Amino acid sequence: MTSTSSRPDAGLHALLAAFSACGATAGGGITRLAASPEDGQARDLMRDCLARISAEIRIDRVGNLFGLVPLAQNPHAPLVMLGSHLDSQTRAGRLDGTYGVAAALLAAEALVGEAQAGRMFSANLCVVNWTGEEGARFRPSLLGSGVYAGRRDADAALALRDEAGIALGEALAVIGYAGTDAPPPMPTCYLELHVEQGTVLEASGAVIGAVTGNWGAAKLDAVFSGAQAHTGPTPMADRRDALLGAAYAIADLRALADLFPGRLHTSVGRIRVAPNSANVVPDRVEIAAELRSADDALLAEATALAEVAFETAAARAGVAVSVPTRELRGIRALPAAVSDLVAACAEAEGLACRRLDTVAGHDALSLLERCPTGLIFVPSLGGIAHNEAEATAPRDLEAGLAVLTRAARRLCRAAGSPEIALQGESA
Amino acid sequence: MTSTSSRPDAGLHALLAAFSACGATAGGGITRLAASPEDGQARDLMRDCLARISAEIRIDRVGNLFGLVPLAQNPHAPLVMLGSHLDSQTRAGRLDGTYGVAAALLAAEALVGEAQAGRMFSANLCVVNWTGEEGARFRPSLLGSGVYAGRRDADAALALRDEAGIALGEALAVIGYAGTDAPPPMPTCYLELHVEQGTVLEASGAVIGAVTGNWGAAKLDAVFSGAQAHTGPTPMADRRDALLGAAYAIADLRALADLFPGRLHTSVGRIRVAPNSANVVPDRVEIAAELRSADDALLAEATALAEVAFETAAARAGVAVSVPTRELRGIRALPAAVSDLVAACAEAEGLACRRLDTVAGHDALSLLERCPTGLIFVPSLGGIAHNEAEATAPRDLEAGLAVLTRAARRLCRAAGSPEIALQGESA
Repeated sequence: MTSTSSRPDAGLHALLAAFSACGATAGGGITRLAASPEDGQARDLMRDCLARISAEIRIDRVGNLFGLVPLAQNPHAPLVMLGSHLDSQTRAGRLDGTYGVAAALLAAEALVGEAQAGRMFSANLCVVNWTGEEGARFRPSLLGSGVYAGRRDADAALALRDEAGIALGEALAVIGYAGTDAPPPMPTCYLELHVEQGTVLEASGAVIGAVTGNWGAAKLDAVFSGAQAHTGPTPMADRRDALLGAAYAIADLRALADLFPGRLHTSVGRIRVAPNSANVVPDRVEIAAELRSADDALLAEATALAEVAFETAAARAGVAVSVPTRELRGIRALPAAVSDLVAACAEAEGLACRRLDTVAGHDALSLLERCPTGLIFVPSLGGIAHNEAEATAPRDLEAGLAVLTRAARRLCRAAGSPEIALQGESA
Repeated sequence: MTSTSSRPDAGLHALLAAFSACGATAGGGITRLAASPEDGQARDLMRDCLARISAEIRIDRVGNLFGLVPLAQNPHAPLVMLGSHLDSQTRAGRLDGTYGVAAALLAAEALVGEAQAGRMFSANLCVVNWTGEEGARFRPSLLGSGVYAGRRDADAALALRDEAGIALGEALAVIGYAGTDAPPPMPTCYLELHVEQGTVLEASGAVIGAVTGNWGAAKLDAVFSGAQAHTGPTPMADRRDALLGAAYAIADLRALADLFPGRLHTSVGRIRVAPNSANVVPDRVEIAAELRSADDALLAEATALAEVAFETAAARAGVAVSVPTRELRGIRALPAAVSDLVAACAEAEGLACRRLDTVAGHDALSLLERCPTGLIFVPSLGGIAHNEAEATAPRDLEAGLAVLTRAARRLCRAAGSPEIALQGESA
């Protein structure tokens, strides 16, 4: 089966290149931390794109940037939302998040053109950029979508501070994205296109991933508390070295993953050490530990083992440990109607599709309890992610845009209902 | 034997309290990083003290602050130098360094009074505060004394930057201590009074420590290099986690100390992680490792083992390691004439004295190859150091000042020669 749609992808690579210029790094990637000047540039570019299709722009209190695109005759028709995030990690790839926003803009442009040409729609469209998905500058991750979904408090989010002590609210004001608009109502369906960040699609030869579930995750902040001492004269036996305790914990958390090969991912990506001076035994070390699994029972068991490992590690170093923050997120299924719609659209485009889980969180997961959401993946070369070398074949990027556009079209012609959209069109 | 000297210690505790106010912390200690505004306040206080005894103030290019105190009739008479440093670690004790500067100021004041009362001297005195002894804000440590002794380049020192990117030269200019004066000539003897930062004196019941040697030290900066990756989907086997490599190395370096119980101290006090985000496998981690021993052969063996341990740790984590910076400092003996003079002065004061090594480095060691130097210790309660709880009994602080004053008096009456001073006076 070959594609019957006119793929609105001529501008995709140009648009991605334009976004890539916002925060470009020497290594070919981007550093575009949330609410940074570079993030502001990318947001301005998104606004320009929205202006070209006469979208109504709304910026809410936490800087989520919405573009409301009327397609139906009725402004109160159901709403279909497409989007992702423009913020990035430090020295990250150019596609993570940005691809989803760029594709949403182009899908919206295509449907606007169809509406102007006379095609009838029964839902309106909204394109969104969520603030602070990455959790790199302001922790935690999934911030803007979490506020929109009612899972996080807007005031608390605005008060979060980065390592330099700058609050999110201040940073948004500096770049002109501390909004006052009410966000749009909850959509009847939210779709997000993203690079896979893994190797399942690549290994299977599929071009489109229809995401059916999200691994569970446990995020533990552990604090090791010892005593400052001189690294010279202090007898080894008298030292209470918080960094040593953390080092044992990092090693033991890695060993834990080997107890459940392939079924448990563990990591410590972030560490804060005080006073962090070469001549001083550290007295306070905070680590951000993560455990992820597709098996809820395994995750619960591993998380309990991790906490025991932290206690053991602390005891070996003669220090104390506490876990002031635990975020536990169980395994979640995405609605079958939406993933079936994604698969049907891939088939209609003549693209090999595979159902798979996402290990990482995405804004789509933030909205999962509030509305039907779907997540469409395209392959990541070598599974490389959060790295400047992140890449996807141009053809696969185009394929993802085609599927997103087709799914959005079907949804907007089915009053925003994935069930109706699934029935409504066979090719 | 009881003391026959008039101890010039009435102002000691008041002066220490005044210095303690510069950078006081809530926990009863100080944070007075090199060339910070708090350091500027403490330096201003030192200048006030020097002005009261009409000392000639000199500030050299790297901010070393000298007060030249004429005691002899001849301005070209030999010079005896007393001092230490006013900078501190973060959340440090109030005595480390500051005690030596305060005592030097009071000793100078006492000898000036004696000269005015008619006592004859054959050497002049100089009180000094060395810039950046701690290496906390600007690495390495012993910066100002190293430049004075010709062991470090002044331009390179001024170009060193702190974590915020501020150069030492800029920071000194901000607080008004970027000087242009030529430093005084090399003294014929340098004496430094310091808290022990260990428990040898406390355990032995001695009040005065006459330091006879300095442990050797190896300071290695090791850099672990992996690859950024997403902490979620990236398969464990594909990760090249630089923080994991560093954690293995920290644990293994600690284990190394147990191979040589009591004879080898090891530590990692400082770590820098990039990108240091919870969701990203770190690709670059730098650790500042130290090894210290009183046995040169043991230190060389342990340092070689440490480098092997770093390689093994890196290999286990699938990352690379390099050691771009190695500072090796052998065991050194302090001149017997000076430590004998300290012991003789302690005896004259009726104070129990013990000869001992210093594990930590001190400015006195910077000058060791350039002039005879002596280091006088008083007990540290519980050996606590680089910690707000650092303390010494008030009587012991007074005892140290009495010994420093007596030794300075004898030196300045013996043309600055420790050998002549040792012979010159029996009680």
